[in-house]
Amino acid sequence: MTIDTGGTLRELRERKPLVHQITNYVVMNETANATLALGALPVMAHAREEVEEMAGLASALVLNIGTLSEHWIEAMLLAGRAARARGIPVVLDPVGAGATAYRTEAARRILDAVEVTVLRGNAGEVATLVGAEAEVRGVESIASGIEPAELARAAARRLGVVASVTGPVDHVSDGETVLAIANGDALLAAVTGTGCMSSALTGCFLAAKPQEPLAAAAEALAAFGVAAEDAAAGAAGPGTFHARLYDALAALDPETLDSRVRVGEA
Amino acid sequence: MTIDTGGTLRELRERKPLVHQITNYVVMNETANATLALGALPVMAHAREEVEEMAGLASALVLNIGTLSEHWIEAMLLAGRAARARGIPVVLDPVGAGATAYRTEAARRILDAVEVTVLRGNAGEVATLVGAEAEVRGVESIASGIEPAELARAAARRLGVVASVTGPVDHVSDGETVLAIANGDALLAAVTGTGCMSSALTGCFLAAKPQEPLAAAAEALAAFGVAAEDAAAGAAGPGTFHARLYDALAALDPETLDSRVRVGEA
Amino acid sequence: MTIDTGGTLRELRERKPLVHQITNYVVMNETANATLALGALPVMAHAREEVEEMAGLASALVLNIGTLSEHWIEAMLLAGRAARARGIPVVLDPVGAGATAYRTEAARRILDAVEVTVLRGNAGEVATLVGAEAEVRGVESIASGIEPAELARAAARRLGVVASVTGPVDHVSDGETVLAIANGDALLAAVTGTGCMSSALTGCFLAAKPQEPLAAAAEALAAFGVAAEDAAAGAAGPGTFHARLYDALAALDPETLDSRVRVGEA
Repeated sequence: MTIDTGGTLRELRERKPLVHQITNYVVMNETANATLALGALPVMAHAREEVEEMAGLASALVLNIGTLSEHWIEAMLLAGRAARARGIPVVLDPVGAGATAYRTEAARRILDAVEVTVLRGNAGEVATLVGAEAEVRGVESIASGIEPAELARAAARRLGVVASVTGPVDHVSDGETVLAIANGDALLAAVTGTGCMSSALTGCFLAAKPQEPLAAAAEALAAFGVAAEDAAAGAAGPGTFHARLYDALAALDPETLDSRVRVGEA
Repeated sequence: MTIDTGGTLRELRERKPLVHQITNYVVMNETANATLALGALPVMAHAREEVEEMAGLASALVLNIGTLSEHWIEAMLLAGRAARARGIPVVLDPVGAGATAYRTEAARRILDAVEVTVLRGNAGEVATLVGAEAEVRGVESIASGIEPAELARAAARRLGVVASVTGPVDHVSDGETVLAIANGDALLAAVTGTGCMSSALTGCFLAAKPQEPLAAAAEALAAFGVAAEDAAAGAAGPGTFHARLYDALAALDPETLDSRVRVGEA
Repeated sequence: MTIDTGGTLRELRERKPLVHQITNYVVMNETANATLALGALPVMAHAREEVEEMAGLASALVLNIGTLSEHWIEAMLLAGRAARARGIPVVLDPVGAGATAYRTEAARRILDAVEVTVLRGNAGEVATLVGAEAEVRGVESIASGIEPAELARAAARRLGVVASVTGPVDHVSDGETVLAIANGDALLAAVTGTGCMSSALTGCFLAAKPQEPLAAAAEALAAFGVAAEDAAAGAAGPGTFHARLYDALAALDPETLDSRVRVGEA
């Protein structure tokens, strides 16, 4: 496993992979714009009539349960199975798992039915899904009864995924190695959907580096964190930070990116 | 009743209440970001399977009929009843009541079935719901055949709510007192969803001051108006004003806020 | 036919026409804000219970299939027929036609059932609908086997519409005349929903100049392109460009607009 964030980003911008996203109403515009700014092509499609066809055209699929209803879960299951049948990587963002039984169950149904490649969530959400103690208030993780590095490793093992647990420091694990990513800025927590954006960008990096999901997941968070650092410099608050975040994603320079990435084994 | 906008804001930022919002597709991102920027935690959830549980976890519930359909009305009724059964305040934003019969009826169904705490709308929408003459074009209030102070008082009495009627000057009433709030900026009318944001922020202030809904509703509009004044200073138009509005909400200073608030009895 | 972009814009701002939009979840906020910034009034409504009434109140209807499902197609058919029965112009944006069979069929169903005034799409989408070879990846046009000027003319003739094909240079045709519009900026392709915005603005211009759909469609693209040029000057990337785009739409000056418009017969 090699962390080469700049190299993966260069590859992604050359190939412009299509990333199919079935996500929540709150952040659709934001994750599409983050995907475009990074250099990939987003497509949003949720109708049962077309999700299998669309997933089959894509280089990665991102499932996000942030504003669920029954039809959407069914579409996610259809798309997820279609993607995996063709070897396309799948990211699951279990938004709000632990907050309501419906969300926890929906996340479990998807994990059971779809061979998820990367599970990207906050500590409370991921802890809920591995059966550890957690407190989730709405879509915010308040507390988890387990250290994040250990949580990432445990989730990877028990759920058979690469687990990507974001927080002040992010932790990504395949069940053996745990990588800690220390990029980012506190303003990320002041804008809704930045967690969802990190899942979308995880899909983009997986599309460019499907054979190494652990590295791709870590690189996605590192790149997003560096962009957040750039966006925060000069931002007057969460609104201008948010606009500048897309500028910063578009301006990420593959040549210098790895000099700024702070990834290490945890 | 005491207007203490800074004190309520300080309380809100310490407690970070969860504000459950069942709102329209157009503004979900915007009301979530306004809620976060102010200092509370938003959660969007509309599935019938989870709205009662989510509303029960929240400190306030905001219902907004801006992009209606039948499933969403049912979810609003379920969530609204669950919230009131637990004493959680409910804000209703009757977007477009008066424009189509479906919207007028939906707003009436919610007012009949849910003990709404604060009804926050424009003059045309509120006038429609009290049976006064009104002209609503789409979601814009064009004319109302009644003075806004009197309209707020009449709506409060007839509908058994705190009525919050926004416009160039806002008027809030519990049926006895009428408060006029003279903060704000004309650019608010150039950005979609600023009315919806004012409803979301009303929910936030109610969550921090549930025992005084009249004061909380007035404080919410005053705080939002002050933020709009700050955002407008230096904005080059509606787009940069919009980004700066979140900066300004986050930068509201509880120490100095009341010196800028223009609230008085009408 | 006279191109008088400034004159149509002045008319639009005086009348503030209501533009009913049944559009996709990704861009609803953006097309509403573009409509408001230009000077018209947007309304989003998709429930079968109200779309006919709302369309009947509007001066133009914009249908956009970007995030389809069956209920939404039905609503579009109902609204489209109601609009045309009252002589209200209808814009169709066939987002992603050619990417999946479901989207291609949905666009065809609407074209068959509704007398569409202007079809606004990218080259791949429009080529798909005239039966020409095309490559559409997600919602991006990759290639079309026909020159854009000829494509616009052929689409207008075969589909009985004014065809508005956007790209680096836009082409609009009524089947006889083909107009080329050379305004715009490359940053438009870095922000999601700018194609959808151009469809919404086409609806605004049609509302102001319904008797001349070819000229109105060209003027809408020219005005949007000029705004994009203004927004790009000084933007640091796609995020700040996006915020500045609304500023620029609001700042368009009817007095000087036509001196900047680059429209000519192709």
